[in-house]
Amino acid sequence: MKPRSKTLLAVDWGSSALRAALIDALGQVLQTRQFERGILKVAPGQFEAVFEQCLGDWMAEHQPLCLISGMAGSRQGWQEAPYCPCPAGFEALGRHLLWIKPDVALVPGLHCVHQTAASVPWAGQDDVMRGEEVQVFGALALTGLQEAQLILPGTHSKWVAVRQGKIVHFQTFMTGEVFAVLSQHSILARTMLADAAFNEAAFVHAVQLAQEGPGVLAHAFGTRTSALFERLPAEHLGSHLSGLLIGEELRAMRQSTGPLVLVGSALLTARYELALHTLGRQATALHQEATWAGHLALARGLEAPAQSGARSAR
Amino acid sequence: MKPRSKTLLAVDWGSSALRAALIDALGQVLQTRQFERGILKVAPGQFEAVFEQCLGDWMAEHQPLCLISGMAGSRQGWQEAPYCPCPAGFEALGRHLLWIKPDVALVPGLHCVHQTAASVPWAGQDDVMRGEEVQVFGALALTGLQEAQLILPGTHSKWVAVRQGKIVHFQTFMTGEVFAVLSQHSILARTMLADAAFNEAAFVHAVQLAQEGPGVLAHAFGTRTSALFERLPAEHLGSHLSGLLIGEELRAMRQSTGPLVLVGSALLTARYELALHTLGRQATALHQEATWAGHLALARGLEAPAQSGARSAR
Repeated sequence: MKPRSKTLLAVDWGSSALRAALIDALGQVLQTRQFERGILKVAPGQFEAVFEQCLGDWMAEHQPLCLISGMAGSRQGWQEAPYCPCPAGFEALGRHLLWIKPDVALVPGLHCVHQTAASVPWAGQDDVMRGEEVQVFGALALTGLQEAQLILPGTHSKWVAVRQGKIVHFQTFMTGEVFAVLSQHSILARTMLADAAFNEAAFVHAVQLAQEGPGVLAHAFGTRTSALFERLPAEHLGSHLSGLLIGEELRAMRQSTGPLVLVGSALLTARYELALHTLGRQATALHQEATWAGHLALARGLEAPAQSGARSAR
Repeated sequence: MKPRSKTLLAVDWGSSALRAALIDALGQVLQTRQFERGILKVAPGQFEAVFEQCLGDWMAEHQPLCLISGMAGSRQGWQEAPYCPCPAGFEALGRHLLWIKPDVALVPGLHCVHQTAASVPWAGQDDVMRGEEVQVFGALALTGLQEAQLILPGTHSKWVAVRQGKIVHFQTFMTGEVFAVLSQHSILARTMLADAAFNEAAFVHAVQLAQEGPGVLAHAFGTRTSALFERLPAEHLGSHLSGLLIGEELRAMRQSTGPLVLVGSALLTARYELALHTLGRQATALHQEATWAGHLALARGLEAPAQSGARSAR
C-alpha cells in the first residue's frame, strides 16, 4: 500500500481534451495542464505514448498515484474499464478502478437502467456516464451534501440523483448535441448566426415557452418562423434555441427534488442557473474544482484502511 | 373569365421536386410528370425558364389554367406569394392566389399564430405551410369531411385542424428533419445503419416509450445505449429512433380530436398509421391524389360565379 502522503496526478481525459492536475498530500492543486489530445485525437494503441508525452515528466519527478477519469476508460480509449453499476457510492467506484500500471488506474464510468413499462425482450433503457461520476463525488466533497440533485450540463447533459452519499440514478439528455446538430445542419442554420452573443431575454422567453405547448419538436420550428416574421433578430435565434432545449430538459425534470448543484463550465452553468431562476429554482454552481476534488476524494478513499484490500487485490 | 371546360395543369413545386398533372374538365388526371427540379435546384431568375422547359409543351398544346403550389411561392421561389392568414377556407385561398401570368397562379401558403402565455414583445409563435394547404383541401374533397384532424408527415410534419371546412389552426413538428440530423450528424450515427430495413417491433416499442418518461432529448440517448448494451441490433436503431420521434409528435398531439386523415407518401403514412394504431387510434390515409384533388377543387372554385370577382380583380 502506498504511503498516505503520496502526490496525486488527477487526469480528466475526455473526448476532446486531456486535463491534468498535480495535487499534493494536503489536497492543494500545485499545477494544471491541458492538451488538445482528447481520445478522438489519439490513434488506437497510442494512448500510453501520448500519456508519456504529456505527463511523463510529472510521473518521473513525483512518482504520484495517477487516476484517469473520462472517456479514456471507454472502448475507444486506452483500455475499457467496465462500468460500475448504480447505486454506487464512492467506495464502489474505488473497488472498480482498472489498474493499468502499478500506480495508474482508470476510473470506470457508471451504468444504470431506467425501468420501462413495455413488456418486450429489450425493456429497460440503459444509461451511462464516464467522467461525470468523479465530478459528482467531488461536488459532494466540496458541498458536504449527502442528498442532492446534480446537473452536469454539456453535449450529453446528466441529471444525477444522490441519496445518502450514493449515486442512485441518473438520466442523460442530448441537449447540447441536439443544439449543435440543429444549429449546424437543419433549416435553422439558414437564419442563425453562429457567433452571436448570448441574449438573455430571448433565452429566458424560450425557457418559458418550453414549459407549455406541444413539445420541443414543434417549438424548434418557432426558431425558424421567428426569423421569417422578424419577431427575433438573427443574432438572438441561437439563444432562443438554447433556451428551448434547456427549457425542455428542465421541464422533463421538473419533479426532481433535493438541493440543486450544477457542475460544468462557467458558461454553461450560468446559462442553466438563469433557466432555473426563470422557473423559480436556485442552484449552487461548481466548475473544474469539482473534478480535482473528486479525484482527491477517490485517492484518499483508496488510502483509507478499509480500501486497502480492494487496492491490493488487483 | 375562362370557360368552365378548361384543362387544369396542377403543379406541386416543392423544395426537392417539381410534380405536375394534366387534369381534364371532368377531373380525370390525364398525365403526370415529375422532375428533380425542386426550388433548391433552380437558380434565382431561372424559374420561368425551368417551367417552360418542363411544362411548356403542355401549356402550348392545352392552354390550361395552371395552379402552382408549394415552395415555388416562397421568397426563395419564383415569386413570393404572401401567406394567407388562418382561419382559411377554400375561397380565401382562391382570393389570395398570386397571378404571375394570365393563366398561371401561385397558390399562397398559410400562416397562423400560436398564442403563448409569456408577455414579451415577441409573444406568439408564427407557423407556416406552403403546399400542404392544397393537400388538405384535396383530402376534404375526397373524403367529404368538414371536421377533421389532418396529419401531413414529412421533414416538417403538419397537424391541421379543420372545422366547418376551414383550416382553423395548424402546428408544425420538425420530426423528419430531427430524425435526419440525429441519424446523420450526432453520436447516434456511429452505430446506426443508414440503409437498414424498417423493423416494426423496434418502432412500435419506441412509440410506446415516447409516451412516458423524460422526453425526447433523453429517450434519444437510449438509441445510443441500446446499441452499446446490445439490446437492439444496429439495423433496428433507425426504426427505434423513428418511433421515438413520431411517438413524441403523437404524444404532443394526444388531445387532438376529430377523424384523423393522413396525407403523404405511402411509406410515411404507413409508419404513422402503425404508430397511431399502437396508441389505439385509426386514420384514413391519402397520397398524391389529395394534391391533385386540391388543385382541382381550387380551380373549380375559381370558375364558380361567386369567385369571378376575385379572379378578374387581379
